Amino acid sequence: MAVVKVKEEKKYKRGVMPGRFQPLHHGHLHVVEWALQRVEKILLVIGSAQDSFSFKNPLTAGERYEILERVIEKRGWKQRIDIVPVMDINSNKQWVKYLEMLLPRFDVGISGNPLVQLLFLDSGYDVLEPPMYRREECSGTIIRRRIVEGKEWRNCVPEETIELLEQFGFPERLKRLAGGG
Amino acid sequence: MAVVKVKEEKKYKRGVMPGRFQPLHHGHLHVVEWALQRVEKILLVIGSAQDSFSFKNPLTAGERYEILERVIEKRGWKQRIDIVPVMDINSNKQWVKYLEMLLPRFDVGISGNPLVQLLFLDSGYDVLEPPMYRREECSGTIIRRRIVEGKEWRNCVPEETIELLEQFGFPERLKRLAGGG
Amino acid sequence: MAVVKVKEEKKYKRGVMPGRFQPLHHGHLHVVEWALQRVEKILLVIGSAQDSFSFKNPLTAGERYEILERVIEKRGWKQRIDIVPVMDINSNKQWVKYLEMLLPRFDVGISGNPLVQLLFLDSGYDVLEPPMYRREECSGTIIRRRIVEGKEWRNCVPEETIELLEQFGFPERLKRLAGGG
Amino acid sequence: MAVVKVKEEKKYKRGVMPGRFQPLHHGHLHVVEWALQRVEKILLVIGSAQDSFSFKNPLTAGERYEILERVIEKRGWKQRIDIVPVMDINSNKQWVKYLEMLLPRFDVGISGNPLVQLLFLDSGYDVLEPPMYRREECSGTIIRRRIVEGKEWRNCVPEETIELLEQFGFPERLKRLAGGG
Amino acid sequence: MAVVKVKEEKKYKRGVMPGRFQPLHHGHLHVVEWALQRVEKILLVIGSAQDSFSFKNPLTAGERYEILERVIEKRGWKQRIDIVPVMDINSNKQWVKYLEMLLPRFDVGISGNPLVQLLFLDSGYDVLEPPMYRREECSGTIIRRRIVEGKEWRNCVPEETIELLEQFGFPERLKRLAGGG
Amino acid sequence: MAVVKVKEEKKYKRGVMPGRFQPLHHGHLHVVEWALQRVEKILLVIGSAQDSFSFKNPLTAGERYEILERVIEKRGWKQRIDIVPVMDINSNKQWVKYLEMLLPRFDVGISGNPLVQLLFLDSGYDVLEPPMYRREECSGTIIRRRIVEGKEWRNCVPEETIELLEQFGFPERLKRLAGGG
Repeated sequence: MAVVKVKEEKKYKRGVMPGRFQPLHHGHLHVVEWALQRVEKILLVIGSAQDSFSFKNPLTAGERYEILERVIEKRGWKQRIDIVPVMDINSNKQWVKYLEMLLPRFDVGISGNPLVQLLFLDSGYDVLEPPMYRREECSGTIIRRRIVEGKEWRNCVPEETIELLEQFGFPERLKRLAGGG
Repeated sequence: MAVVKVKEEKKYKRGVMPGRFQPLHHGHLHVVEWALQRVEKILLVIGSAQDSFSFKNPLTAGERYEILERVIEKRGWKQRIDIVPVMDINSNKQWVKYLEMLLPRFDVGISGNPLVQLLFLDSGYDVLEPPMYRREECSGTIIRRRIVEGKEWRNCVPEETIELLEQFGFPERLKRLAGGG
Repeated sequence: MAVVKVKEEKKYKRGVMPGRFQPLHHGHLHVVEWALQRVEKILLVIGSAQDSFSFKNPLTAGERYEILERVIEKRGWKQRIDIVPVMDINSNKQWVKYLEMLLPRFDVGISGNPLVQLLFLDSGYDVLEPPMYRREECSGTIIRRRIVEGKEWRNCVPEETIELLEQFGFPERLKRLAGGG
Repeated sequence: MAVVKVKEEKKYKRGVMPGRFQPLHHGHLHVVEWALQRVEKILLVIGSAQDSFSFKNPLTAGERYEILERVIEKRGWKQRIDIVPVMDINSNKQWVKYLEMLLPRFDVGISGNPLVQLLFLDSGYDVLEPPMYRREECSGTIIRRRIVEGKEWRNCVPEETIELLEQFGFPERLKRLAGGG
Repeated sequence: MAVVKVKEEKKYKRGVMPGRFQPLHHGHLHVVEWALQRVEKILLVIGSAQDSFSFKNPLTAGERYEILERVIEKRGWKQRIDIVPVMDINSNKQWVKYLEMLLPRFDVGISGNPLVQLLFLDSGYDVLEPPMYRREECSGTIIRRRIVEGKEWRNCVPEETIELLEQFGFPERLKRLAGGG
Repeated sequence: MAVVKVKEEKKYKRGVMPGRFQPLHHGHLHVVEWALQRVEKILLVIGSAQDSFSFKNPLTAGERYEILERVIEKRGWKQRIDIVPVMDINSNKQWVKYLEMLLPRFDVGISGNPLVQLLFLDSGYDVLEPPMYRREECSGTIIRRRIVEGKEWRNCVPEETIELLEQFGFPERLKRLAGGG
């Protein structure tokens, strides 16, 4: 039971990559590009799909879907990447089985999160652990905080998604949720 | 508030087409082809995604996803058709809002089911009602019954899906669920 | 543990009267009038509040609330009758405790339904069983069936509610749900 | 999409005012009085109705109902104010739709809470934002803390509710929940 | 993937035997005795533990627990048989995983029910299918029907459980649920 | 309504003792031994049975069941102690009723937890409050922290459970959940 860090020789058929994407940022894309070299197809799982309009999860799953879709289409990844919003269940032990029920067959999990890795391993899957990418600069937490503090954040997200984020009123929503009226 | 039966002049951007696909059959494909002429993109919603291994819903959402995916890829529809498994909620009044939360924006519902039509209309959406297609021959109910009775059913489903259905043990599962051991 | 049929001498403080009110009809009002002579205050519980747009439960809880409210105001019962929508739980044994959690204290259940009576009795409450009232003519089931068959039904419901029912599109909704398009 | 602060000229028909009322205090009553000048009817929504016997939510919805009812009756507001306990759902995006399903039609939300305001606005409703009222002295949090610390708190709640609070064992329950045995 | 009908040579460590036990009857005991020869320990899973006071599931899980416990103690099976009430989940595909989460490790399922057998097999477990036992005379359905019809039923249940069933008011409850007042 | 601290003269028939047992430690066993002198039978309720693979609840209910079972068998307590895993419900007020539904009849709660005591008392049960037992040394929180810090912890748990804990990979799981890879 070990996390596969780099295992070039084996190409997986389909990797499941769960994320909250609040919002999608360069770090996520870096992982996607890294994974595209190791798996044939990626299934992006939009996690906590039931949550939105909270400070930790401001965007709805549908809004996150549109943002991911735009990037996928813009970069010509449509043949290899699919998107599925998945709501949380309240039982970690059953989570991978729940994904097996909802999703097409996959043979590897893609995640840097220790819990997610543990759950895939516990269910007998390999795990691809992507290398870190400027975590101190690019994380959902940092972006959300920068927006509330009125600092620059647009350079952390793919350029083609800014228009959508503004259309969704993302910065204003976040500020209001932070209590700033 | 009226169901749009044929409205050639207007092209919708994205149509949501819910179905249980137990299993996918020629009738479903007929609707997809008909809808592709009227909307730019179709989102196939695999309904009752939590259900499986029951006589009415033998296949899991993941199995149904693979079957739909194979047909989409085989027919070159990948740029225009996406798939999302969606679990039931126990409240009709909230169902369209629930779809709005989970899915990218859509502007029309595609369905021949009176309840589904009513719910989209009640939430202010147009509805595309596809023409009937040999209902007496091709429906999930009929296929499932024919399998249990040991009759021919393979001519009701797209040829490229038969291999998958057999890999999933679909006919045997159904017979066992019908009590035949 | 016995159902109290008529027990004139004792006046209860607050009686809980659960119903689905799909739709409110003369039979319900008859029970309310009968109960007003035996309890000081009535709490009308709109049951199955999560359900709507189904043939058995076409109206939302909110629509049923408005209909009940209109009758209560019209008849000057506002000081003695309150309304609370309550969603189903999937456990009969816990149902009365669930009501105790949600509602102000009550000392009697009002119902002709054997299950409802049993649950109140099992939790130590008295039950007032109202006399039958033209059940063959006035029941939700009969009204819904008459509407679908295109027969007269308006004489089964309080006159002041007809306007609301039509505003809600009740007859059309029901016909559509019955599959009549 | 803007919060309506004071808009004297327009009288709303029914305003929904959600609160946890743990316990009802002078600040709540101040808002009710302010709102009664701007809307014809108020629907008090007892939020988090499923929760009780926790430090944040010590009282059951039923207990809170009785307290609100006493104040409403004492002050002659019965014709204009109704009460409905509403359980939480785990999805902010669907919350207003959920209220629309459960409650009679309303045309304005009444709240000082940024999330609540945002959700009503996102669903197309106006929002009445009441002026602040001695928040540093009168809030549920402060009252609960004062009780646990053995300080005076009765001057923060309407006099007619003290008897009920003591009947419910509110101060003792709170102390025990705070771990004080 | 085949149901093990009789496989004397292999002794399983722990078998899971799910049942609704509404009520426990001679047929159940027959299976238990048969299984005790093939497994070291049996875990009796009281299924649909959330349900009660319905015609199909009149007894609570707790009442069924007491009845099973009395028989186990009376017959000296305590060292080899345990009881766990388990509530339903709404997803067949996840059911065995759910049991794996809740229960000590087991290595075989014991059931004559085709769905239950299929789910254990789908998760990689062997299944012990017990021989039929006077099904036409001894089944929960038949016992419940006989009670409602006022016919003899006590000879279908273990003698030591009759006292408990009467203490729980089982026959009266059932008659009332059948609508007989 | 008072917590029974020591009430030697009365022997209860069955006491319910809820715990999370993450993991079972000497403190729990101390309470069990203390309670065995005051009640005839103990029902160990494995609480939060749906949770696992989290830092607060690392073990599944099934794993906790096996650990408890081993201790019970080793010490010859099988005739007097039973185990039932119970999932959380989101409503404190209904929790004791939920236990009444799931479990055989009991006449006393056994707990040092103020909330649990309050809920049993509110439902009319006596409560046995066990004396404290080296809490500063032996608690689930302390054991979990010691494991993550790489300190000695095995002396806090019954010797016969160490083998199982290691078989389950308990220390490694906990370290990974703490983020330590």
